[in-house]
Amino acid sequence: MEFSAKDVAKLREITGAGFADCKNALASAGSFDEAVKLIEQKGQARAEKVKSQERETREGLIESYIHHGGNLGVLLELNCSTDFVARSDEFKKLARELVLQIAGTNPLYVSLSDVPEDVLAKAREELMQDPDVQKRPERLREQIVEGKLKKQFSERTLLEQPWVKDDKITIGKLVDDVIRKTGENVIIRRFARFALGED
Amino acid sequence: MEFSAKDVAKLREITGAGFADCKNALASAGSFDEAVKLIEQKGQARAEKVKSQERETREGLIESYIHHGGNLGVLLELNCSTDFVARSDEFKKLARELVLQIAGTNPLYVSLSDVPEDVLAKAREELMQDPDVQKRPERLREQIVEGKLKKQFSERTLLEQPWVKDDKITIGKLVDDVIRKTGENVIIRRFARFALGED
Repeated sequence: MEFSAKDVAKLREITGAGFADCKNALASAGSFDEAVKLIEQKGQARAEKVKSQERETREGLIESYIHHGGNLGVLLELNCSTDFVARSDEFKKLARELVLQIAGTNPLYVSLSDVPEDVLAKAREELMQDPDVQKRPERLREQIVEGKLKKQFSERTLLEQPWVKDDKITIGKLVDDVIRKTGENVIIRRFARFALGED
Repeated sequence: MEFSAKDVAKLREITGAGFADCKNALASAGSFDEAVKLIEQKGQARAEKVKSQERETREGLIESYIHHGGNLGVLLELNCSTDFVARSDEFKKLARELVLQIAGTNPLYVSLSDVPEDVLAKAREELMQDPDVQKRPERLREQIVEGKLKKQFSERTLLEQPWVKDDKITIGKLVDDVIRKTGENVIIRRFARFALGED
């Protein structure tokens, strides 16, 4: 498509991508919105590439959050590969957003792969007995249960949750953005959340 | 013994006990040191009495501590029975001392009764094979192992640890002092300690 310097500036503002990337995306896209998508795909591909590298991630930050009045607290370990990135504003900001998210949404797991196999098996069994599932044709039930299972655990899984400050993006995406910007893998290692007097 | 107003003042300063308690202790004790001991025993008895009451402890504070630079963090839930005590300086100060202690000494358990039975069994078995134990008469070994076991786990148990700021008193004693002063049971409910990059 044809584009102006203003389009490039706008695309940079929206995506945070570099000048050359934005120009290239606009040149090869059929519309401005398509250019945004191209940039996002490229960024995601870059994040995936960084994540697939097996570089050690033992640097980072321990971050905490105490709710006003001391009735709720969160502790988080966020890892990356270098002390340089650990001390960057992007990384510190992400750690801060994550403890606020955990305080607000009470996730139980970091990622779906952290859900223990016996917990999944029990939930799978319960869903299979659900009247909603039982009234469906038998051959479809397994698939329906897996769909419900994913939905059920996604709500309690940090990386799958919508961000409390912008529900159009997930926490996983928020982390990927920092991976893309820093060029380093970023891992939510573990967290603890204590609510006063809970069982 | 005979005593002066100065003795009473000194005893109050050392023990933090009330005027009448100090006068009575001095009157019935044979020496000043014995009076101190009497006061302490009475205080301990009062703490034990409070602890034995089955009053609900669901108030309190969630407290956190992040070591300079964000490479170590602690989260703690400290419980009491009323919001009034939770907001007292005594209680807040204790919460603060506890997170500092946990950061410094890395305990694994709150009390000895929290050590899982299988962990104890494994340690017991290992100690029984210890050459130091094996060379002792068989009839004494069990007792020796129990002694070593208690010592071994006491070091990793918060309530049994000497306080980092004054190793003459244990953390259990520090908590008892607050129980005695506030007249409410104080429970270390749980804690988490994250050190950056640890396995």
